[in-house]
Amino acid sequence: MDKQREDFVLAQLRGILPGSALITDPVAARPFESDGLTAIRQLPWAVALPGDVEQVRAVLAVCRNNEIPVVTRGAGTGLSGGARPSTDGLLLGMSRMSRILEIDAENRCARVQPGVANLAISQAVADLGLYYAPDPSSQIACSIGGNVAENSGGVHCLKYGLTVHNILALKLQTIAGEELILGSGGYDAPAYDLLALLTGSEGLLGVITEVTVRLLPVPQTRQVMLAAFEGVEQAADAVATIIANGIIPAGLEMMDKLAIRAAEDFVHAGYPLNAAAILLCELDGTAEEVNDLIDKVAALVRSSGAFDVRVAANATDQQRLWAGRKAAFPAVGRLAPDYYCMDGTIPRASLGRVLLEIGRLSAEFGLEVANVFHAGDGNLHPLILYDANQPGQLERAEQMGASILELCISAGGTITGEHGVGVEKIDQMCSQFTSPELEQFHRVRSAFDPARMLNPGKAIPTLARCAELGGMHVHRGQLPHPELERL
Amino acid sequence: MDKQREDFVLAQLRGILPGSALITDPVAARPFESDGLTAIRQLPWAVALPGDVEQVRAVLAVCRNNEIPVVTRGAGTGLSGGARPSTDGLLLGMSRMSRILEIDAENRCARVQPGVANLAISQAVADLGLYYAPDPSSQIACSIGGNVAENSGGVHCLKYGLTVHNILALKLQTIAGEELILGSGGYDAPAYDLLALLTGSEGLLGVITEVTVRLLPVPQTRQVMLAAFEGVEQAADAVATIIANGIIPAGLEMMDKLAIRAAEDFVHAGYPLNAAAILLCELDGTAEEVNDLIDKVAALVRSSGAFDVRVAANATDQQRLWAGRKAAFPAVGRLAPDYYCMDGTIPRASLGRVLLEIGRLSAEFGLEVANVFHAGDGNLHPLILYDANQPGQLERAEQMGASILELCISAGGTITGEHGVGVEKIDQMCSQFTSPELEQFHRVRSAFDPARMLNPGKAIPTLARCAELGGMHVHRGQLPHPELERL
Repeated sequence: MDKQREDFVLAQLRGILPGSALITDPVAARPFESDGLTAIRQLPWAVALPGDVEQVRAVLAVCRNNEIPVVTRGAGTGLSGGARPSTDGLLLGMSRMSRILEIDAENRCARVQPGVANLAISQAVADLGLYYAPDPSSQIACSIGGNVAENSGGVHCLKYGLTVHNILALKLQTIAGEELILGSGGYDAPAYDLLALLTGSEGLLGVITEVTVRLLPVPQTRQVMLAAFEGVEQAADAVATIIANGIIPAGLEMMDKLAIRAAEDFVHAGYPLNAAAILLCELDGTAEEVNDLIDKVAALVRSSGAFDVRVAANATDQQRLWAGRKAAFPAVGRLAPDYYCMDGTIPRASLGRVLLEIGRLSAEFGLEVANVFHAGDGNLHPLILYDANQPGQLERAEQMGASILELCISAGGTITGEHGVGVEKIDQMCSQFTSPELEQFHRVRSAFDPARMLNPGKAIPTLARCAELGGMHVHRGQLPHPELERL
Repeated sequence: MDKQREDFVLAQLRGILPGSALITDPVAARPFESDGLTAIRQLPWAVALPGDVEQVRAVLAVCRNNEIPVVTRGAGTGLSGGARPSTDGLLLGMSRMSRILEIDAENRCARVQPGVANLAISQAVADLGLYYAPDPSSQIACSIGGNVAENSGGVHCLKYGLTVHNILALKLQTIAGEELILGSGGYDAPAYDLLALLTGSEGLLGVITEVTVRLLPVPQTRQVMLAAFEGVEQAADAVATIIANGIIPAGLEMMDKLAIRAAEDFVHAGYPLNAAAILLCELDGTAEEVNDLIDKVAALVRSSGAFDVRVAANATDQQRLWAGRKAAFPAVGRLAPDYYCMDGTIPRASLGRVLLEIGRLSAEFGLEVANVFHAGDGNLHPLILYDANQPGQLERAEQMGASILELCISAGGTITGEHGVGVEKIDQMCSQFTSPELEQFHRVRSAFDPARMLNPGKAIPTLARCAELGGMHVHRGQLPHPELERL
């Protein structure tokens, strides 16, 4: 951007925003140079931190009129680089719009600004016996606007659904300057479901300035069980068996041997180190229901071969069992200088086979993999361990990650469950989707932002990019690699 | 359409379809002149009944190349005129594509063609202890493709969700000639959620040729309770109280005095004729769970003022209690020559107040109203009784219906819960949405069908139409009528 144009645009932005809400100094802009995918950094041209809807609208108008790309950022906890700034664009940070506007206990919902932290909503309604269900592991920090943009999940989305199932309405500012209300207080809205379309759209379709979230009653009781297995297939079989018996646990998580060891070394959760895999199963509901379900689940995991089944004796014990799972990512981070976290999903019934194949890829690429994931949803999080300072290791890790994602697609799954595409998985989109499907995404995008000013270069690859990659489309049921045929 | 062009197009269609699959004779086309909204009839120019995907694609290509509008029809049970034919267009009936292609018990899903009947899916998987949850009252006849197009609900969608929550993937043929796969076997798909966008899009975005539905395990036990009240507000209060206590019944239906009397006269369900309103509450789950919940719900409805609480003694008794609800529409149909069925939704907490206001409108317009509806979802079905042979009554019924829908919008709800907009509620769309919102819908439509060849004139009104109506936008929270201010 030439100096004259830059000064012209900044002068307009200064007319809209208070001094502290416009950052152009590179040192002050440093905290905004990446999101949670810290391997990919870029200083933004400028950062705007609007305090209300009118400021958002005015900033968008300046960007529209001056053709400045806009990257919207919530709390910056995203893991796929969706909020990576662009060097010639504005980073629009929503952190100052963090008020809870209305709590409607009678209709079990709350209207909030996009910058409010996920956990802050549950804290604000705790006195009413209510909470907001989706709980990404970053929930203490991540913003609800970012959750909507990524359609975030969490440990409890097996029973309570993703973000899209837990919001009722949005206020959206389009780059054309319109405010749209999507969704309603009713349980279904007429015409196209733009609320669902926006959820998970990764900041490409508009800027969210208000979210109406659904609130649920806090379950009367919770109980946590740990089951240990001698093989990952047995653990996978137990997952399928629990669900097949009509039981939907509040959470059903799996950790493999490497993840168990790492977590145990780190937080001493009391996990059995001789297990090849453990399941953590949380059940919630009334006391009678939970007692009944615990017995049933215990019988089912034993029938799948669990050699050690423990039920938490009290709330402290429950917290201790969960502590290992919750600390698993940083714990694995202590095993190697770097790790690469994948986020593929697969149909639950393929869990055992896909985990074996990941083990095979680990041997092939010579990189260790720890698995710690939402087993009940079939949402894998293989953590590929590597050392970026060793020549070639980063590339090998990325190649192995791509192979894992293609494996997920071949098994009938997807390249991302809850972390989004962002910049990280944009090339794998060429494998997941056909050219006509990608073209359709672009046409939908154009219906909101024909000039592609919002979050350019993210989420949806151009067809040219896929062509350059030699983009092999790995369609569901069509198996490009002989080694995948057993799936 | 001039004769020469007509012959030219028909010759092409005859080259694609077997003789019995192309209907041009007006007598033979008569069964296709309306859907379940029989007040609106129109003979189609021609009817095509393709037997496979290739025929669908070839027919669409002929229509595209010759600019022939296409109206897709499932079983024709829709209630909003969404499948009303157009005089210069092709009616594309999907009834011959009614095969179940694959049942995958392990992953709890089935791949089916669009013309398969909703209930036929559950029957096909009953031996496996599975079923497909959404159950519109037309489920014996209505097709799964039509269910997707309308995002159909049913008695049990309170607990199990609408169609959008119970499908995993679609195959879509676009008018441009592309086949798109939307959704996946994974629990979330990357990029825009086109699966949700298509669900409820009323045939305007493409032709569905395959649906992958989610299957659920049949609940171990069910129980049905009837609770009778002296006032509708007490019944409404009981609904709010049950849900507020964290209980999500499988079904929670309300009937008012007129609906009770009509149903009782018709099927002798044993309903208390002295009640102003009854609730029917179905609970399902394990035997222990259901026993526990029945006691809780009984205590809650009594605390809201129920004077008569009955639990079905056995399966026959359960069926008898449901028979009155299931026969309520035809039963009310015996009370007057005609009735007009509304489908607004409101936040649950407004139920009592909105029902009182509907009673007031009934007195104002001089037309009786029976209410029988999905109370747990806040999905109202007021049935306005009238006699089309009495001058002015149809117009009065339509005006009263419009007032009821504006009442729903003012209460924070919507003009349709599960029946769709179609042609019936297209004018109320001008009240529900602002011009920028309607323009956005049109842009999304253009992303799939820029020439508006699919189901033209349905679901989304043109801005010109709204302007002609003097389209007053009744936005949420803004109350256009003084009489609505008490809501």
